[in-house]
Amino acid sequence: MISVALLGFGNIGSGTAEVLSENGAQIERYVGCPISIKYILDRRDFPSSPWRDRIVRDFDIILNDPQIKIVAEMLGGLHPAYEFTKAALMAGKHVVTPNKEVVAKFGAELLEIAAEKGVRYLFEGSVGGGIPIIRPLINDLAANGIISVSGILNGTTNYILTRMERDKTSYRDALAEAQALGYAEPNPASDVSGADAARKIVILAALAFGKLVDPDVIHTEGIAGITQDDIRVAAAFGCAIKLVAHTELVNGRVFAMVAPHFVEEGNPLFGVSDVFNGILVEGDLIGRVMFYGPGAGRLPTASAVVADIADIAFNIGAPARKLHWDPAEACDIADFGGCSCRSCFIFADTPGGVDKLEECFGNLGDVVRDNGRMAFVSETLTEKEADARAAACGLPFIKRFRIL
Amino acid sequence: MISVALLGFGNIGSGTAEVLSENGAQIERYVGCPISIKYILDRRDFPSSPWRDRIVRDFDIILNDPQIKIVAEMLGGLHPAYEFTKAALMAGKHVVTPNKEVVAKFGAELLEIAAEKGVRYLFEGSVGGGIPIIRPLINDLAANGIISVSGILNGTTNYILTRMERDKTSYRDALAEAQALGYAEPNPASDVSGADAARKIVILAALAFGKLVDPDVIHTEGIAGITQDDIRVAAAFGCAIKLVAHTELVNGRVFAMVAPHFVEEGNPLFGVSDVFNGILVEGDLIGRVMFYGPGAGRLPTASAVVADIADIAFNIGAPARKLHWDPAEACDIADFGGCSCRSCFIFADTPGGVDKLEECFGNLGDVVRDNGRMAFVSETLTEKEADARAAACGLPFIKRFRIL
Repeated sequence: MISVALLGFGNIGSGTAEVLSENGAQIERYVGCPISIKYILDRRDFPSSPWRDRIVRDFDIILNDPQIKIVAEMLGGLHPAYEFTKAALMAGKHVVTPNKEVVAKFGAELLEIAAEKGVRYLFEGSVGGGIPIIRPLINDLAANGIISVSGILNGTTNYILTRMERDKTSYRDALAEAQALGYAEPNPASDVSGADAARKIVILAALAFGKLVDPDVIHTEGIAGITQDDIRVAAAFGCAIKLVAHTELVNGRVFAMVAPHFVEEGNPLFGVSDVFNGILVEGDLIGRVMFYGPGAGRLPTASAVVADIADIAFNIGAPARKLHWDPAEACDIADFGGCSCRSCFIFADTPGGVDKLEECFGNLGDVVRDNGRMAFVSETLTEKEADARAAACGLPFIKRFRIL
Repeated sequence: MISVALLGFGNIGSGTAEVLSENGAQIERYVGCPISIKYILDRRDFPSSPWRDRIVRDFDIILNDPQIKIVAEMLGGLHPAYEFTKAALMAGKHVVTPNKEVVAKFGAELLEIAAEKGVRYLFEGSVGGGIPIIRPLINDLAANGIISVSGILNGTTNYILTRMERDKTSYRDALAEAQALGYAEPNPASDVSGADAARKIVILAALAFGKLVDPDVIHTEGIAGITQDDIRVAAAFGCAIKLVAHTELVNGRVFAMVAPHFVEEGNPLFGVSDVFNGILVEGDLIGRVMFYGPGAGRLPTASAVVADIADIAFNIGAPARKLHWDPAEACDIADFGGCSCRSCFIFADTPGGVDKLEECFGNLGDVVRDNGRMAFVSETLTEKEADARAAACGLPFIKRFRIL
């Protein structure tokens, strides 16, 4: 029998307890012995829970119990999740977590401590909920040099954009609906600002390229400014608007960003709708593979947490695989202005405007004119060039969407 | 250093050698030591190959060399691939392969021998080429009870159907084109008959349910009879025709089949086009996840073979995970007639035909009448009921497509 401690008995914590219990036979077949929950750390009482006798309030009880080999951190937020994780690893305990905030901010340090102590720090649930992505990226694509990763990594914003596109709902109404359905938090800032997706893409970038970039320093745009006018322009170009997180190496440096993109119909991410997530990985051998599924939710995320627990439990005697990330220095991070893509430029429609745009951008291809706006898709330009040209053409610039 | 032997130096064998060499540094970082190709078994000479000095013709050289810990079987076909695999496992060597024929036919026995000998038999490349599916299904979804697996598992037929749908090409022309492009073999029988997909779905069924069904006994329909008339009917119902392989448990017994299906637009498999594969897994925790990518090809498949080699090489000292499949007995296999689904029935359009259909099937919903045919989508019926009603209504029945 292997004893585990759960930190946090909220949505995912209680889901994990339920899975360990209800799918216990299945998990035991995989691991070779049963997994038993010895402690659950939470400040609250759960008098009617079947787990009420496992609830403890003092983390030190867990830390000082040598029977506890595996700790599942499901507290959410940076503190005290980071401190508890660090202490558990230092004490030679394996830690698993779906906490993307901690992994994105402190992953390099925590992996270093795990390696020193010969234990593992696993976080399959931190990106894409229950979708298998972290382990496949490490193991199944081990022979590949990773070229890029692009993902729809936030289900709440994808739901909002899907509703706006499919049902012509306004941003405000779609957000209210997402909140009513429990997809968005009462304070939806970290979802709609792109901060949540930023945390996830820096984790994927670190797995792909070995450097962990601070999620607070990457270029991040949210979806709050998107309108039905934008969605019509996207549709006119055969595209859907998705909040895309993207990372690739540019001249050997890590480029990572989050922004609403026009996703073309031929792209596998085009069809990723509602609360679903999709992660497109490009490798030098495999070409493009996509992982698709529910990016959040109680049981899907618990599925990932328990898979991590089971992985550790099965291998508990064996030498731990060491994963190493360097914290990215300024010189490891690509200059944003030098990164390039095609974009859809949107200007206010003015008399003679199209001629002026052609003077500035050359051949425009199709120009979409709709509701007082004119839009076209540019050739590949660097971010710097794109901004400079939008300013230089002397027309009232509204916004620009990058194309994926 | 870990020495491996490659069996077969064809398309995938030479791709594997190339990957082990060109991405060697990447693989060494993962494994912790270099992987070296000591032997390549092939009947042919390769006088201009950089690997020419590794070519051997006698399998016993490999079998009797205790330095060889890992054998990669890439001969294709059942014989002598099965005999060589068995001999290598019996000799205590790990074996990896993309050979779905051998895994589908002899997987249960070979896994049993591997378990006895404390070695591993891995076959990530046998389904979906380089798409991570086998390992994620075993490890990442370990906590899930698997409900069903549905897949577009054959790139050649998917290419043909995509061309027929997108460009109104005839089946014959699309097939000729697939052959010209090298997607289809000169003898395309195993692709277009569904036999290739049948081998793959029994492997996925065994991973999901623990029972290996003989691929020759499952219900298998190919795509040779599909016409532009069928594609128009599908489109009228908002569907695309895909060759779908499907497995689920029906009353605790394994149901597996391959047939062209109408795939509805909301299904993630709807957008899987061209030579790409998609595998949709439904688990009791995760809900539905899809794995998408190139289902074949030299480097994608080599990516999977090398990932298997690297997995074994990294864990070479540790106890091997035992995977156990029972060969399915007749009583383990669901009665095909009792399995149920919705279907699109297509009849020749005859005067009064729709009324007769309503008498027989009840409310038909939308009826599509096109080019002398009438078609509708039924409620859920068992296979037996569906066949019986089609016969009983006294109208000229043309064909039936199951709906996914």
